Amino acid sequence: MKAIDDAGMREIDALYVSNMGAAPLQGQLQLGAMMADTIGMRGVAAVRVEAASASGGVAFHEGVKAVASGMCDAVLVGGVEKMSDGLPEELSSAIAMSEDQEYTAYTGVTVVGLSALLHRLYMERYGATAKEVAMFAVRGHENAVGCPHAQYPFRVSVDRVLASPMEADPTHTLECSGVGDGAAAVILVPADGIETGVEVASTAVATDSYYLEGRKDLLEFDAARKASERALNAAGVSHSEVDVLEVHDDTTITGVLSLESLGFVERGMGASYVAGGNTTRGGELPTNTFGGLKARGDPLGATGLYQICEVVMQLRREAGPCQVEGAEVGMAQSLGGVGSTCAVSVLRRA
Amino acid sequence: MKAIDDAGMREIDALYVSNMGAAPLQGQLQLGAMMADTIGMRGVAAVRVEAASASGGVAFHEGVKAVASGMCDAVLVGGVEKMSDGLPEELSSAIAMSEDQEYTAYTGVTVVGLSALLHRLYMERYGATAKEVAMFAVRGHENAVGCPHAQYPFRVSVDRVLASPMEADPTHTLECSGVGDGAAAVILVPADGIETGVEVASTAVATDSYYLEGRKDLLEFDAARKASERALNAAGVSHSEVDVLEVHDDTTITGVLSLESLGFVERGMGASYVAGGNTTRGGELPTNTFGGLKARGDPLGATGLYQICEVVMQLRREAGPCQVEGAEVGMAQSLGGVGSTCAVSVLRRA
Repeated sequence: MKAIDDAGMREIDALYVSNMGAAPLQGQLQLGAMMADTIGMRGVAAVRVEAASASGGVAFHEGVKAVASGMCDAVLVGGVEKMSDGLPEELSSAIAMSEDQEYTAYTGVTVVGLSALLHRLYMERYGATAKEVAMFAVRGHENAVGCPHAQYPFRVSVDRVLASPMEADPTHTLECSGVGDGAAAVILVPADGIETGVEVASTAVATDSYYLEGRKDLLEFDAARKASERALNAAGVSHSEVDVLEVHDDTTITGVLSLESLGFVERGMGASYVAGGNTTRGGELPTNTFGGLKARGDPLGATGLYQICEVVMQLRREAGPCQVEGAEVGMAQSLGGVGSTCAVSVLRRA
Repeated sequence: MKAIDDAGMREIDALYVSNMGAAPLQGQLQLGAMMADTIGMRGVAAVRVEAASASGGVAFHEGVKAVASGMCDAVLVGGVEKMSDGLPEELSSAIAMSEDQEYTAYTGVTVVGLSALLHRLYMERYGATAKEVAMFAVRGHENAVGCPHAQYPFRVSVDRVLASPMEADPTHTLECSGVGDGAAAVILVPADGIETGVEVASTAVATDSYYLEGRKDLLEFDAARKASERALNAAGVSHSEVDVLEVHDDTTITGVLSLESLGFVERGMGASYVAGGNTTRGGELPTNTFGGLKARGDPLGATGLYQICEVVMQLRREAGPCQVEGAEVGMAQSLGGVGSTCAVSVLRRA
């Protein structure tokens, strides 16, 4: 309803609902029809889009296609996740469904467990320190201060991060995004005739080996590399033109590898780049400007749409204490599983 | 791979996977990336689309939008369901997730149970007999004879249907589609420059009250009515021009109500229309020409794409013993839950 009020329109042709875990967590399918009915839009075309934790970013991509097709004049893309139902182990098991059940998840490894393998390999191969990697979480919390929609809008010291329990060695609990309920929504319309606002310059989705052991290089998210290339090419935007960036930091190492795989930072340099302050609001590449998955929150199927909303807030200059000055171009990146799917969107101030 | 071989092309821009129950049944999410990897298309944009048992029809609609958007030149839409895993009660519970868990499914009612309420009301309001309604199943089985991909390609007498156990009074077991594994896929490309083949004249999706008690009239699938109107208008096709029709008969009454809600038969007359032989291959409105959900099979997330493939086979005149002579226009209709979502597609021989 906030998105509808903001857009000042109620005529919607199609509804995309992104959600990851309602079947295992709430026993609920067909969220498209359910949401249409719930928000008083009974009758509208509605569908659920799912790509694990990339669901929100991918749904945005589908919404953009719907408008571009000429078959829709106004599309609502809404993401939702209710993670607070059920026991922690049920939640862990639902999240692990983003990995192959027969060859990976059945071993009992969690998604953070897989990510932790990359974390260790990264430190070993590039000589990055635990502290440098952990700084990704610290930067997120710094940015979240003053953000009304952030789950954890307060600073956390790197010592506190490193003193928190091991979630999966070498990844500490405070290096992982938390558990939370959340929803985010956007409305997409054709850009013709619209003079001010935010324009979708491009969106792209790519996939990688579904199994970590099938990757050419464990430390490059090939789906992120491909989606970034496709989106930047389609938008005619270069890396240096991106003023705000939202990346998928469900763990610190995932955030670091995303920065590198998207092509913003040289490989092996992501952790020190972040530790050095380059991703802060006043830095070279303001990243996760409302706290990212770590501090703003990570309600799975909604996360990718939080990112889009945040980029829109930045480009509209409505980001309040989180505002990046003069932001003209923003990018959002969302990962499904440990990088099996990646959605990248580039938005521009019109 | 059959679709790819048939199309003679391997360059695909996007993959849509329709699936309903892999999370509850196999503990598996993110089937887009999984399928892309499995069929050797790692890297391609991939997403799962879900609208319960309408997933296949809705995914087709999304695939059409993707091509129409100009963002994709070739799209693979594939549906899959593996219903044979797990215990019968686990399957029933997974299927019930298409209804609202907090207000409907929690009571223990199954989807067939809800459908049975409509079945009884239909007989009471319109004076239709149990035998007339059951004839929908008999007609399906007649049509399935000789169909290589049908699950039950043999005749079943109406007496046998009515002698089968009650699944949910007054709906008999042999009035319900069975349990089966299956997959179906199509490839969509722009029609420009293609002289022969099958053209997508239109697709449409609509929704209805998510809760049966919210319906204006329990005996009209409003989503089917809306989707049919939208699709026929967009295609510029009238009801009488439809040569082959595939409807969603997960129970006999659902098939009957679909015929009526789509606008082909006057309300209250669907059962006697079918009993009278009008939907046979040589009849006025050849319907479920390979057996429908009842006899061809109903692998949930794949079912809507089976329908599309079957319409294509008819329009290409490749339906073998199931061929409807001179078929030029076909329609497929897929329902999610007890009519909460409906997808309708109109195809034309080019």
